[in-house]
Amino acid sequence: MTDQIEEQPDVEAESEDAYALDRKAVMAILFAVETEDRAALVAAMEPLHAADIADLLEQVNPYDRARLIRLYDKEFDGDILSELDEGIREEVISVLNPQVLADAVRELDSDDVVDLIEDLEEPQQEAILDALEDSERVAVEQSLAYPEYSAGRLMQREVVAAPEHWTVGDAIDFLRSSEELPEQFYHITLVDPRMHPVGNVTLGRLMGSRREVPLSDLVEEVFQVIPATQYEGDVAYAFNQYHLISAPVVDDEGRLVGVITIDDAMAVLDEEHEEDIMRLAGVGEGSLSDRVIETTKQRLPWLAVNLVTAVLASLVIAQFEAAIAQLVALAVLMPIVASMGGNAGTQSLTVAVRAIATKDLTGANVWRVIRREVLVGLVNGVIFAVVMGIVGLLWFGSPALGYVIAAAMVINLVVAGLAGTVIPVLLERVGVDPALASGAFVTTVTDVVGFFAFLGLAVVVLL
Amino acid sequence: MTDQIEEQPDVEAESEDAYALDRKAVMAILFAVETEDRAALVAAMEPLHAADIADLLEQVNPYDRARLIRLYDKEFDGDILSELDEGIREEVISVLNPQVLADAVRELDSDDVVDLIEDLEEPQQEAILDALEDSERVAVEQSLAYPEYSAGRLMQREVVAAPEHWTVGDAIDFLRSSEELPEQFYHITLVDPRMHPVGNVTLGRLMGSRREVPLSDLVEEVFQVIPATQYEGDVAYAFNQYHLISAPVVDDEGRLVGVITIDDAMAVLDEEHEEDIMRLAGVGEGSLSDRVIETTKQRLPWLAVNLVTAVLASLVIAQFEAAIAQLVALAVLMPIVASMGGNAGTQSLTVAVRAIATKDLTGANVWRVIRREVLVGLVNGVIFAVVMGIVGLLWFGSPALGYVIAAAMVINLVVAGLAGTVIPVLLERVGVDPALASGAFVTTVTDVVGFFAFLGLAVVVLL
Repeated sequence: MTDQIEEQPDVEAESEDAYALDRKAVMAILFAVETEDRAALVAAMEPLHAADIADLLEQVNPYDRARLIRLYDKEFDGDILSELDEGIREEVISVLNPQVLADAVRELDSDDVVDLIEDLEEPQQEAILDALEDSERVAVEQSLAYPEYSAGRLMQREVVAAPEHWTVGDAIDFLRSSEELPEQFYHITLVDPRMHPVGNVTLGRLMGSRREVPLSDLVEEVFQVIPATQYEGDVAYAFNQYHLISAPVVDDEGRLVGVITIDDAMAVLDEEHEEDIMRLAGVGEGSLSDRVIETTKQRLPWLAVNLVTAVLASLVIAQFEAAIAQLVALAVLMPIVASMGGNAGTQSLTVAVRAIATKDLTGANVWRVIRREVLVGLVNGVIFAVVMGIVGLLWFGSPALGYVIAAAMVINLVVAGLAGTVIPVLLERVGVDPALASGAFVTTVTDVVGFFAFLGLAVVVLL
Repeated sequence: MTDQIEEQPDVEAESEDAYALDRKAVMAILFAVETEDRAALVAAMEPLHAADIADLLEQVNPYDRARLIRLYDKEFDGDILSELDEGIREEVISVLNPQVLADAVRELDSDDVVDLIEDLEEPQQEAILDALEDSERVAVEQSLAYPEYSAGRLMQREVVAAPEHWTVGDAIDFLRSSEELPEQFYHITLVDPRMHPVGNVTLGRLMGSRREVPLSDLVEEVFQVIPATQYEGDVAYAFNQYHLISAPVVDDEGRLVGVITIDDAMAVLDEEHEEDIMRLAGVGEGSLSDRVIETTKQRLPWLAVNLVTAVLASLVIAQFEAAIAQLVALAVLMPIVASMGGNAGTQSLTVAVRAIATKDLTGANVWRVIRREVLVGLVNGVIFAVVMGIVGLLWFGSPALGYVIAAAMVINLVVAGLAGTVIPVLLERVGVDPALASGAFVTTVTDVVGFFAFLGLAVVVLL
């Protein structure tokens, strides 16, 4: 065993850039655009998946993007639109020839059309809806009637369902005679006479069983029904937690109205994570293809909040101007205490925010987690107190200054652990997204406490 | 359209805690443990999915955890072990009755056993391997021969494959006569005579087609083959990018050796995100159930790095002691400049780190992104320069102080945008995980530049 482990070949280096756009392919495409060589462009784009073409469009500048789209023209596929980052969808749609746009959206499934148009401005929405066939348009409008970010928006409406009393043979005959099956489906959902879903049968088990076996003998053990109004983040959580592949969606009366498949749930999980990371860093919704003005607008609010908290911290420092004038070393050392507190607080709050998001931090363990964070703050505080005490002593030759910075360090790291856990938990209780707001509060606490503890102790002990 | 959107019912509030453990159920379980009432415990646990039981075990304290496991005894399912957080797996395994453990692991698929034991200490690994049947043990040991975090570790070895010349009828007859099909499978993989995968046929299309149709007419358009040595993060990326449901895994000679399904890819995507978030916040690998000592160890290195950068910043301040002694207002205002720079830098670096992870930041757009970040820094810098200039003037009554802090703000926010983008890109180029290391470098730059610009300008202009 151990030998085997040691003989393992290396895992492929991350830097090999599997699946990143090939530099040469991109050069060939941009060259074809430059020389307006449509045949070469189509040939160079041919091997690319719609998702890769979307990435390419996001990465080139707006001028090349427009020229590429116009030259590519009729080849432009609906899937490319689905894959495009929301930030440049409107721009791409406005560049597309209206006839090409109409053809492109007509290829899409209803859930993809919903995803495509829900964030567009009304004139563009109308243009796309007008391009759809009537039945498709009705399906899209019905989905749009569900709230944003709900399971209803996420589901596809084409469902493969069977009465609960059917046998394997009934199901196979039905499938074979169906004119139009969904592109992708993995289960047959059994329903009772009132169209309430009662179980899922995987296609694999169906194919491996004899014709006379009742479907009800084959249902999967794990079966989750998703309410159409459920928040999409919870849907993604359920798929990840229970390893679902597809799940039926029901209306308020519990009737089957659609199905969500794991690929859509995975995309939501990815978006939710992205959002959490961006919110923790104080970056609003945005994408790499946004322009300067949009990006500035997204970041400004968080920087404004930070300015307020920084000024608050400065007001604390201002109370100790006399002390600083007397002992300038205080000004030199005070940012260290605040900075350590801020970092320790960010550590605690990140752990707490993630644990809340994954439903791992609950009433059952919140006190134990708070106690742990405070203790971790205490232990780290003592360790860095010793280090900084020595630094303070050696640098400024004053043991008393060493004691003061050491004590302030312990206080601030304990407070950081406490605030970093309690603040996200409280924000969540009152219905504010902890990923969005915790950072500002926790940093304010650690800055104010850090400066106050250090300068206040200095006044008492040193002056 | 507009009316419909306005009439939407509200999306279910996130705070309703769909899928979170039910408080009452947890109380009932803990009460059963307290009263050592095995029947009540089994009854209370019965409706819970293995993933929920694992969450419950993570959330209770170690003492209750051990009592619960002992009382639950034979009911303990292998899936619970798979779902458990790595942090407490060893502890749970050491509490389990060896016979129960052996039964539990024998229920698991080989890929789940691999996932379970790869992080265990050798004695525990051996105990589990010894419990397996010989064929299963060989499969597990073969998977362990692939490098950690590789597709080979992630794949399941049971594959449903068919020769490329088969028809639908051939495939259905084969499936129906197979003794043992995998628990979950969604595709039949077509292989050439040398066992190289050439295409995937979904079960849905298979079932919807007539018996005489050749399988090769039904292959999916999108087909990705995964090398067994590929990094698991790239595998997850491919699933998410190309909407794969399952993909064949091949060895160095391109021969089919296994299959990866989307639920495993989704779990990897989730872990990778978690890791990125934790690394960005300077929190090492760890989990909510870790104890104080482990948690302290995980967080200490990052705090130590931060201490070094904070001391560096203090050294800069120390160069200006004379200036601060002359004008204490400088000490009051200087943290504001550093703090704004730190936050703006964190915004830029988070966007850059994510874009690198999603392969959206490449040679094709890196210069445009850098230019954008610098311009955003400039615009936000000018806005906050005006605000802080006015604050400086009103607070300290000195227009010159206002000019100085305004100029320092512009300089630091521009530098923040530049450093926040360039540093992660350079780290990635030299093979260091930008999520892990960017924060320390960027904060050092913004602290040093912030203090130096503000205090340096103050010396030139004010004194």
